[in-house]
Amino acid sequence: MIYLDNAASTWPKPKEVSQAVAECIEEYAANPGRGGHKLSMKASKTVYQARVKLAKLFNIKNPNDIFFTLNATQALNQAIKGFIRQGDHVVTTSLEHNSVRRPLEFLRKEVGVEITYIKPENYMFSLETIRAAIRENTKLIVVSHASNLLGTIAPVKEIGRIAREAGVRYLVDASQTAGILPIDVEDMYIDMLAFPGHKGLYGPQGTGGLYVHSSIALTPLLHGGTGSHSEDIDQPMTRPDRYESGTLNTPGIAGLAAGVEFVLQTGIESIRRKEWWLTRLLLEKLEDMEGVTVFGPDKDTERVGVVPFMLEGVDASELAYILDQEYNIAVRAGFHCTPLAHETVGTLTTGAVRASFGYFNKQEDVEALVVALREIREAFAF
Amino acid sequence: MIYLDNAASTWPKPKEVSQAVAECIEEYAANPGRGGHKLSMKASKTVYQARVKLAKLFNIKNPNDIFFTLNATQALNQAIKGFIRQGDHVVTTSLEHNSVRRPLEFLRKEVGVEITYIKPENYMFSLETIRAAIRENTKLIVVSHASNLLGTIAPVKEIGRIAREAGVRYLVDASQTAGILPIDVEDMYIDMLAFPGHKGLYGPQGTGGLYVHSSIALTPLLHGGTGSHSEDIDQPMTRPDRYESGTLNTPGIAGLAAGVEFVLQTGIESIRRKEWWLTRLLLEKLEDMEGVTVFGPDKDTERVGVVPFMLEGVDASELAYILDQEYNIAVRAGFHCTPLAHETVGTLTTGAVRASFGYFNKQEDVEALVVALREIREAFAF
Repeated sequence: MIYLDNAASTWPKPKEVSQAVAECIEEYAANPGRGGHKLSMKASKTVYQARVKLAKLFNIKNPNDIFFTLNATQALNQAIKGFIRQGDHVVTTSLEHNSVRRPLEFLRKEVGVEITYIKPENYMFSLETIRAAIRENTKLIVVSHASNLLGTIAPVKEIGRIAREAGVRYLVDASQTAGILPIDVEDMYIDMLAFPGHKGLYGPQGTGGLYVHSSIALTPLLHGGTGSHSEDIDQPMTRPDRYESGTLNTPGIAGLAAGVEFVLQTGIESIRRKEWWLTRLLLEKLEDMEGVTVFGPDKDTERVGVVPFMLEGVDASELAYILDQEYNIAVRAGFHCTPLAHETVGTLTTGAVRASFGYFNKQEDVEALVVALREIREAFAF
Repeated sequence: MIYLDNAASTWPKPKEVSQAVAECIEEYAANPGRGGHKLSMKASKTVYQARVKLAKLFNIKNPNDIFFTLNATQALNQAIKGFIRQGDHVVTTSLEHNSVRRPLEFLRKEVGVEITYIKPENYMFSLETIRAAIRENTKLIVVSHASNLLGTIAPVKEIGRIAREAGVRYLVDASQTAGILPIDVEDMYIDMLAFPGHKGLYGPQGTGGLYVHSSIALTPLLHGGTGSHSEDIDQPMTRPDRYESGTLNTPGIAGLAAGVEFVLQTGIESIRRKEWWLTRLLLEKLEDMEGVTVFGPDKDTERVGVVPFMLEGVDASELAYILDQEYNIAVRAGFHCTPLAHETVGTLTTGAVRASFGYFNKQEDVEALVVALREIREAFAF
C-alpha cells in the first residue's frame, strides 16, 4: 500500500507509538488523577510528560496550559464556543475547515455573532484586508495555519501581530502543521492553539489538544468530574482540570507522547525538508503531465505536503477508487470538509483528489502515483 | 499489585483489547469515513462492528443510533446540554456523579433551568417521590444506574416507566453498570444511555458512547467535519455523523469492540455473579471487623462491586496511601466526584475509601485487603 492520505491521518506511525499505547493498556491503565495509588500515579505522570513534550515543541511556558481532547475538532469547539459571546465579531478565512466554520455558523444562528471570511487573492492573504476587517466588537481572529485542501501556508506570525496590536485574541488551527512547520506560540502571538495528535505529531487517533494562554478563561465545553475539588458543584478553575472533565485517553496520550518524541528527535526542519522535497517533486511531475490540473500555488511557493489535483475526463471519486483498487495507492477524493476553500478555487461541484505526504513517504511513492496517473489517463483517452 | 479500583477504570483488560488497539495503529489507522481507500474502509468497518456489538449488548435496534465519545462525561454533556432548553425542568437524584450534576448546575446558572434532586431514603428511591416531582415543564429524568460511591442500584425500569407514562424523556448514566448489569433500552424505557468504554466494557480509556433514540434530535456538542455533506455549512442530520465531528478514536474503538466481545462471550450473568460474590464476601468480612464502618445498604441488598468504608482513627487518604505503599493494594480515597452522595451518607468532610471489583479479581484479593485492614487497625491502636 502506498499511503498518500497523511493529511487525514499519518500512517505508518513510528513503532514506539503502538508500543507505548499497548504498554499503557497492559501495565498501568488506571485512571490518572483519580486515585493516589501507584498505577494511577504512573498514568498521571505519563499524561504530564506528554504535556511537557508538547510545551517544548510549541514553546509553551506552562505545560498545564495544554488540555487534551478527543481530536482537533473538540479543541476548536472548546476554543470557539468557550470564548465567543453574543454580539461578538470574528475574523476568519475562507480556507477554514468545517471544524472552524461550522461552530462559527452555529454561533451566528443560535447565539448571534458576526463573522467576516477573508478570501485569499492568488492564494495569499492580504494583511491589510485582515487589519481592515477588525471592528470594535471583534473578539477573535481564527486562522488555519495551512489549508487542508491547498496546502497553502498562512502568515500566522504577521496575522498574530495584527491581532495583538488590535487587542484581539488569536486562535490558530494547526491541524495541518503541528509537527510539520515550526510553531512558537510566544513568537507568533498565538493565544490559543488547536492541534490533532494523529497527523503530524504521529500519535494515535483519539488524541488532540488545545493550548490556552493563562490570561484567557473559557466556558468549559464539558462539565463533570475532574478528580479535584469534587465537593464543589461548579467546575474548578484549576488547570488543566477545568477543561479535562472525565477520564482522559491515557493510552492514546502515551502514544502521542511517543509521537511527539519522534518529532522532537527527528527535528521539525528535517521533517519539513523531506515533505517539501516530495511535494515539490510531485508538483513538478504533475506540471508536465497533460490533462492534469493542480490546485494551489505554483511549485516554487512553499506549501505543506498536500497536492490537490484533477485528471481531465475522470471524476475525482472514480480516480481515487481506481488508484486504490488497481494501484494500491491511497489518496482522498471529495470536499475534505472545506467547502469554502473549494469555492475559492472553483472545484465546489466536482471535488478534487488530494495526495498528501508524511515523513515516511519515499520518492518511489511519488513515482508510482505519476505512473498510475499516466496509465489511467491513457486508458480513459480511448 | 492487587487492583481494587475497577469503578474508576477496569484493570487488567482482556489481552485482546491491547492487541486490537495496537493492530489498528500498526495496520490500518487511516481516517474512517474520510476516504474511500482500503485502509479507511477497514477503519470504518471496525468502528461499525463496535456499534453492532454495543447494539447487541444494550438491545439497540439501529447501531447508528450509538455515537462514540471521548468518555461517558462527553456523552452526558452531549445528552444534557444538547437536549435541555431554557425554562425546562429536570428530575435527577442526589447520587449523581459530577458528570451529571455539573452540566445541570451550569445550565441552571447560565441558561435558566430547574432541577429537582431526589434523595434516597434508606438507600432506596421512592417511585412515588419521583412521580410527584414531575411538573408540566419537566423534560428529562436523569438517573445513574448505580452509584459510584455506594454501589446501590436504582430501579431503572420502574423509573423509566414513570417517565414514559408522563411523556418525559429518560437518560440513564450507565457508568457503573454497562457490561456489569443487564441493560435493555427497550425494556427499560431508556431514551438516552451514556456509557464509558473503559470500565465494565473492558475497553481502553478514551472511549465511551451515547445512545439516543431516533425520535430525539439533539444540538450537537461538537460541530465540524463529518466526512459527509462537507459542502453544507450546517451540521448534517445523518446519524451517526451529526454527533461525531472530527476524527474518531479508531484504535480505542477497536479495543472497545474487543472488550465488548469479551463481555458478550463471558456473559453479563457470569460477570455479575462473580462481582457480587466478591462484593458480598468483602461486606461480610468487614461487617465482623471492629472499627470499620461500611457505607451503603447491608450485605443482603444487591449492589454493584463497590464497597466504601472508613477505618476508625485513620484518615481516608492516609489509609489508601498505606494500602498502596505497604500492601500493594490499589483503592481510592476521596469524594469520587459525588459530593451529594457523600452528603447523603454523612461523609462529606472526610471522604471514604472505596474498594471496587472487576471480573479479574479473586477471593485472595478480598482476603489480602481484610488482612491489611486488620494490621493497619492494630498499628494505629497503639
